[in-house]
Amino acid sequence: MPPAIPYPGPHPGLGAGLDVLLPIREDLDLVEAELARRCACDAPAATEIGEYLRQSGGKRIRPALVLLGARFADCAPTTRIRLAAIVEMIHAATLVHDDIIDAAATRRGRPSANARWGNQKCVLAGDWLYMQAFRLALEERHFGILDALIALTQKMVEGELLQLDRLGRVVTAAEHLDLIERKTARLFEVSSQLGAMAGGLPADAVDRLSQFGRHLGLAFQMVDDILDFTADERQLGKPVGNDLREGKMTLPAIYAYEASAPAARAVLEQVMRDGGYGQVPFAEVQRLVEASGGLERARAESREHARWAGQALETLPPSPWRDALARLPELVIERSA
Amino acid sequence: MPPAIPYPGPHPGLGAGLDVLLPIREDLDLVEAELARRCACDAPAATEIGEYLRQSGGKRIRPALVLLGARFADCAPTTRIRLAAIVEMIHAATLVHDDIIDAAATRRGRPSANARWGNQKCVLAGDWLYMQAFRLALEERHFGILDALIALTQKMVEGELLQLDRLGRVVTAAEHLDLIERKTARLFEVSSQLGAMAGGLPADAVDRLSQFGRHLGLAFQMVDDILDFTADERQLGKPVGNDLREGKMTLPAIYAYEASAPAARAVLEQVMRDGGYGQVPFAEVQRLVEASGGLERARAESREHARWAGQALETLPPSPWRDALARLPELVIERSA
Repeated sequence: MPPAIPYPGPHPGLGAGLDVLLPIREDLDLVEAELARRCACDAPAATEIGEYLRQSGGKRIRPALVLLGARFADCAPTTRIRLAAIVEMIHAATLVHDDIIDAAATRRGRPSANARWGNQKCVLAGDWLYMQAFRLALEERHFGILDALIALTQKMVEGELLQLDRLGRVVTAAEHLDLIERKTARLFEVSSQLGAMAGGLPADAVDRLSQFGRHLGLAFQMVDDILDFTADERQLGKPVGNDLREGKMTLPAIYAYEASAPAARAVLEQVMRDGGYGQVPFAEVQRLVEASGGLERARAESREHARWAGQALETLPPSPWRDALARLPELVIERSA
Repeated sequence: MPPAIPYPGPHPGLGAGLDVLLPIREDLDLVEAELARRCACDAPAATEIGEYLRQSGGKRIRPALVLLGARFADCAPTTRIRLAAIVEMIHAATLVHDDIIDAAATRRGRPSANARWGNQKCVLAGDWLYMQAFRLALEERHFGILDALIALTQKMVEGELLQLDRLGRVVTAAEHLDLIERKTARLFEVSSQLGAMAGGLPADAVDRLSQFGRHLGLAFQMVDDILDFTADERQLGKPVGNDLREGKMTLPAIYAYEASAPAARAVLEQVMRDGGYGQVPFAEVQRLVEASGGLERARAESREHARWAGQALETLPPSPWRDALARLPELVIERSA
């Protein structure tokens, strides 16, 4: 892991290790300014909710992917800043609606927007953010970008709907992979390709960036799922053991289930049925995913996607931007929150 | 009022009087087919909710505006059918999210989608419908259409947010007018202009159609608000007295409030405070809006907008399509559900 240089800008969420983003620090500041400027509207609630999310210390990893990807092509600065703001707005919109759906109480260590403003305003604020993202995208006057963004957001929403249908059910690794493709990897993929696409990079090079983003996103989500079993609650900013409690089987639990005898399987099923750790303490579940090898198998798979992400970059021309991207998979794998 | 000829197609919601739409009956059937074909996705819930809404017997007045407006220009049949489907999908998306916000139990005489599928799936189904509408619009490869649709949906969402902020408060007629511009009139306006715009009609003629749609929409919403005080519950398909119970002051109540002494004002305020008719029976409110002249003033204003809608058409060249549009204001004014 690279030495942790504290990021000197206004993005505390970037955190240790993300000094890798120093080459685009100015751009990231401009993205913050663009987000502040463009997330204001006639309705105070949408403006306030947008601001609340913006100040919550997100990692801004998706905008960073746009900004770095844009450097592989001749993408105008205003375009890459705008595209970076767009993917963060889409991310924020999905968070607002997902928190309603999960009835989440906290997000990034603070009350979630729905806990603070109520579901009604959050439904509308999420709508507004989606539309504002499309409005900014429209300003680019580039149909390909609009096609990519609409297809992306629909896939994400369909993913959330499929997840709802599967709540509390034992799912297969293949079903789960399809889900995290939709929920996380697609946005990473589109973020990585968007700036390069706008700058007119040839399709095969854009495709390399897409592949990079996709595998990075899959690794990112797998680590997220692992952290839900292993992280320190304070560091994570939300309760651990959340996924299973909400009836969501992620990779560690899926692999643990596959490798376990009926008695251990029944333990996992019971937590999902109970919607909590009243009958089965979380520590028992942690032991189970550890002892069954489920956790290690999920870790190995996340490392594999991180490796594939790195490989996707290899045929792209060397540059400081490629170097920055190339360090992200390791950071994603090593993160602890 | 013209003689009521039952509409012979599969649109029972068109109802009496809407024989005026017979010239576009074939088109309306094609719009239904387009909606059925394009409102299906990987996630069963979104498909089911879309289908449920489609079969609920909506009046399809917005698609009709698109189809008639398109005939003033050289708009290809596939384009006008698609645009008509788009405005109905946007309308459906707003209904799904609005019903969550209002916690509505019924819509058009049946359980509302949120009562049947729950808020979680309805948040996502609404998102999906909005995005699918934009996806269809993107297929037209016409930036002007996309600009109009994004601006429209944002205005609508902002309107809902503003309404939430004002719940339970006494509002002015000007505030209310701004609200119904956003919530209803804008979609009528854009529907009326969309087909003509796509067909390349000169801007001043498009503007006439826009004005027609705007005034028709204002009249439509005012009649809606009046019916909430005067309609037969079974005919309306939802409870009456809803608006005031939900803390929404509409034109009849606003004008009644303006014209009333403090004691009568206190009656209206109490219903909004109570969120129901436990202390003050609805019949007393009905007497109050009637006796104060609030109802009549609201009726006069709706008739004025209907008249302005008709006037907007006068400089457009005579045609069967203009004749059909010209009869809509009267139908809107005379409707009882």
